[in-house]
Amino acid sequence: MRRSSIVVLTLAAAVVAGAVTVAAAEDVRAAIEAGNKAFSAAVARGDAAAIAALYTSTAQALPPEGEIARGRDAIQKVFQGFVDTGVRNLTLTSLEVEAHGDTATDLGTWAIKGADGATLDHGKFIVIWKKEAGQWRLHRDIWNSSAPRTAP
Amino acid sequence: MRRSSIVVLTLAAAVVAGAVTVAAAEDVRAAIEAGNKAFSAAVARGDAAAIAALYTSTAQALPPEGEIARGRDAIQKVFQGFVDTGVRNLTLTSLEVEAHGDTATDLGTWAIKGADGATLDHGKFIVIWKKEAGQWRLHRDIWNSSAPRTAP
Repeated sequence: MRRSSIVVLTLAAAVVAGAVTVAAAEDVRAAIEAGNKAFSAAVARGDAAAIAALYTSTAQALPPEGEIARGRDAIQKVFQGFVDTGVRNLTLTSLEVEAHGDTATDLGTWAIKGADGATLDHGKFIVIWKKEAGQWRLHRDIWNSSAPRTAP
Repeated sequence: MRRSSIVVLTLAAAVVAGAVTVAAAEDVRAAIEAGNKAFSAAVARGDAAAIAALYTSTAQALPPEGEIARGRDAIQKVFQGFVDTGVRNLTLTSLEVEAHGDTATDLGTWAIKGADGATLDHGKFIVIWKKEAGQWRLHRDIWNSSAPRTAP
């Protein structure tokens, strides 16, 4: 094979590999955005068990004002407390998703609205997602509120 | 070359590759723990510029009770406010470090102690580190407090 042919083939292979990587990254982002929509839908139903089912079997949630919740049962309790406050409208917006094989990081913002559409609270999150049994699930999840602390 | 020799060499290569991966992961963990110690040392000096210098040039900090701080200048302001409250004793404990090439995730706990050694506040963090110009730096940083909200 001529040297020029080898160069062309190598470049073509690099372009294909790059395209595959970009396509895979877009797939991960779409899967995570679908996961976040499923999260919001479970909150809308007040269904803490469905929220917990979106996490991996060894997940950890790191809620404000609480210790690390390890495993789905502990995570379900955290979100039972959350939906018990009456929250039904939670929006999750991914700003930045980075995929690294079966791990992905997801940085975004969240907002809670009342029945009248007014924003009651808002903040940020970082979630580490893992592909478990072919499904992208929340594996490590931390969030906080951007609103100043006020007296309860 | 005999087939058995090829198998042995392949297995040997896999073992070496595995050992290199483990060693690299330990290097990343050590670099991140050193970074966290440098962070605590800068807090002890009340030096917000030194804290900001531990972040990448395009870093984002996601503080509780504040919006996303983008870039070192904004991050320095966040930590100037933090050291201005008088905090000098911050401990950062990495519980889980995962390396993915030039990216690493770091989940851990933090504690703030007063001059008498009593814990004033404690919480959790997730930091996404990036290797920038050969140096591991904080790239995305979110934390919250585990203490219940009380009236200010």
